Amino acid sequence: MPLNLKNFVNSLASMSKLQDFQDLDHIDGLSISTICANLYNKPRDDLVMFYFRDGANYASVFTQSKIISENIKWNLNIKCKKIKSLLVNTRNANAFTGSEGYKALKEIAEELSIQLSKKQNEDEDSPKKVLANEILFGCTGTIGERYPTKKIKSNISDLIKKIRYTQNKSIWVKAALGIMTTDLKPKLAMEECKIGDKKIKIYGIAKGSGMIFPNMATTLGYIFTDADLSNDVLSKLLKKNIDTTFNAITCDGDTSTNDMVSIFSTGKVKNPIIKNITDKKLYNFDKALHSVLLNLSKRIVADGEGATKFISISVLKSKTQSDAKSVAFSIANSNLVKTAIAGEDPNWGRIIMAIGKSGINFDTNKLSINFGDIKVVENGKIFSNYNESQVATYMKSSSIDISVSLNSGSKYFTAYTMDLTKKYIEINADYRS
Amino acid sequence: MPLNLKNFVNSLASMSKLQDFQDLDHIDGLSISTICANLYNKPRDDLVMFYFRDGANYASVFTQSKIISENIKWNLNIKCKKIKSLLVNTRNANAFTGSEGYKALKEIAEELSIQLSKKQNEDEDSPKKVLANEILFGCTGTIGERYPTKKIKSNISDLIKKIRYTQNKSIWVKAALGIMTTDLKPKLAMEECKIGDKKIKIYGIAKGSGMIFPNMATTLGYIFTDADLSNDVLSKLLKKNIDTTFNAITCDGDTSTNDMVSIFSTGKVKNPIIKNITDKKLYNFDKALHSVLLNLSKRIVADGEGATKFISISVLKSKTQSDAKSVAFSIANSNLVKTAIAGEDPNWGRIIMAIGKSGINFDTNKLSINFGDIKVVENGKIFSNYNESQVATYMKSSSIDISVSLNSGSKYFTAYTMDLTKKYIEINADYRS
Repeated sequence: MPLNLKNFVNSLASMSKLQDFQDLDHIDGLSISTICANLYNKPRDDLVMFYFRDGANYASVFTQSKIISENIKWNLNIKCKKIKSLLVNTRNANAFTGSEGYKALKEIAEELSIQLSKKQNEDEDSPKKVLANEILFGCTGTIGERYPTKKIKSNISDLIKKIRYTQNKSIWVKAALGIMTTDLKPKLAMEECKIGDKKIKIYGIAKGSGMIFPNMATTLGYIFTDADLSNDVLSKLLKKNIDTTFNAITCDGDTSTNDMVSIFSTGKVKNPIIKNITDKKLYNFDKALHSVLLNLSKRIVADGEGATKFISISVLKSKTQSDAKSVAFSIANSNLVKTAIAGEDPNWGRIIMAIGKSGINFDTNKLSINFGDIKVVENGKIFSNYNESQVATYMKSSSIDISVSLNSGSKYFTAYTMDLTKKYIEINADYRS
Repeated sequence: MPLNLKNFVNSLASMSKLQDFQDLDHIDGLSISTICANLYNKPRDDLVMFYFRDGANYASVFTQSKIISENIKWNLNIKCKKIKSLLVNTRNANAFTGSEGYKALKEIAEELSIQLSKKQNEDEDSPKKVLANEILFGCTGTIGERYPTKKIKSNISDLIKKIRYTQNKSIWVKAALGIMTTDLKPKLAMEECKIGDKKIKIYGIAKGSGMIFPNMATTLGYIFTDADLSNDVLSKLLKKNIDTTFNAITCDGDTSTNDMVSIFSTGKVKNPIIKNITDKKLYNFDKALHSVLLNLSKRIVADGEGATKFISISVLKSKTQSDAKSVAFSIANSNLVKTAIAGEDPNWGRIIMAIGKSGINFDTNKLSINFGDIKVVENGKIFSNYNESQVATYMKSSSIDISVSLNSGSKYFTAYTMDLTKKYIEINADYRS
């Protein structure tokens, strides 16, 4: 609901100036290594390894595109009980690379399995072999280019050397930077909560600023917790919370072949056993997880390609949530709405247009539209005291709240997006050159 | 099919330089008047009247938006056998203007009815009263602004004074210019054909360069013929031919509240009576009508807001036409595809992305993609002799043909669109200012 968002939106707006984010520190059972594998032929980290020395429970949601990348195929085949590592590379999506791209992942997983097993032998009292099929891959970048197997494989030993069992703020920022493509800012979020009387951390990083549209998981998002939760509980929690967070954002209506959001629990905090997600002991964790996912999602939109404004579109008092969602995304994906907002033009006629083309049935005479707190349309007519100069001033804000009330039910949905600017064109017309 | 389009596309490309179009002349039974009613506070024609002194048979298709303009509501209520006049204004869409906007049309129609009836008395041997409900309205422009009833009404007498029963090239160009909003070029097209041994003319004008997306009728298109065809035959012909013409174009995926395409037949050529559209005598007319509609549609796209390139996307060998259409529009509406083309970047990975997100089921291993005549993807893999510099050269063309073959059936669909440029943002961020 728009009013509840205000504080957050304000903090986002200041965030966008200060590049501020919370300080993540240590999650027991996790190690993070980042390296420059020279995938960009530039001195920047482009390969990030998350290593769980004792394994982690896990769950993921993936892109709903009919063409999926080779790493998503690989991940869908992973059925192990506990995951040992997640390796994320940028620059190359490993999509439309065929069996060669899949074999490359196998080759890298096998090398990683050998070297991580060796590391276990060196560091652990009761070392366990790390298997190739206990490793997940995140890939992001250009589609259809040959996967840089050699460059990645030859850098594994350096990733292993960098394993430290304690994380600090710096390594989290490095990881968040290391998974970026056209993003301008790293995306990090955290919450602390309790399960029973045990204090739990939930940390997350994400990337994405183009090809963002909700179809299950959107962009890359990785959540880490020291809680002890089963794969089944993690999976249900993730699915429950993704709809109103990662699936509520859109930058350009395009969907990647590579999208994934995963959650990992190291189980180092021995909280009470949770058997299902309706367990009351899980209430705070559930809320905190939603908050981390929403925080990351909003950061993705706020950093959307070429974005100068953060836009929330709330559709209220709808008969069904699905109708509310259709209308919200019809507005959020309209180039005409998004260019008007870029131009700070209170062109509410385009909102009307976008509501109309959403295809849902509603009573025009009940329609109300607010820009922030300013009434623009009431009962299907332009508001009697409508003051365009007031709205024009509002349009200069760096975050714009549009709320549409259908006044025909009690369901609602909020979508998040950004304006469409010349900068978006610049970024996307020149992406590969 | 892309190859068949080549000649036309070439002629379009040269058209965009020369502003060339066919010379329309006289359609018996029609009169066209244009005037500057000062709706833009600029010296340009903004009010166009088409007057059928003996009435015309007619049929229309309208926007499928759930919010429709007052003039579309008016038109939907028109049930007369023959239409006497079509009045088109620009600058104001008469959408979301409520009962006031509807009443305005009634007031204008009544005034027009009085003055046209007077004109009948002056000019005709057996004058007939022109009724208010024998008049159609086309409105286009900004949504939600008060309709300029007074300005329009006070200019009716001048429109009547300008009635001439012979048209020439000049009045057609004036009419095409007079219905434009953000269009840069007037859009005219014509074909001649035969029904039986009678020579028939089909002339058309159109406007539209933003908010263009297929939902039945798209933008404004008005077709005039001197053939003698019933309302029923006209309606069936229009619906049959609209799917692959006006409903095959997209500029920005947005749908107007005001879209309409109408066809009028004055019946001045006494061709053999046609009872249904399967009549073989109608074959040439049917083909010629399709050609006029397609010609106008392509001119709309070629003049799309900010367009620098005309893009045809053909999806071939599909199981169903509906699948082919889904894929074609998923590509044609993708901002990422359209910005890549603007940047002359052969980023075929984005075509893959757009095919994937279309949601249809297909076998990736059978997928082929061509840019012009250049093979890019074959059997689900990058073409073995793929030569990026060759495609990069092709991308510099002013018209780009992309064909996607699903190799799983015999159906196909071609969508037409243009690239997404900074100019689009400029036009749409500043539309009202």
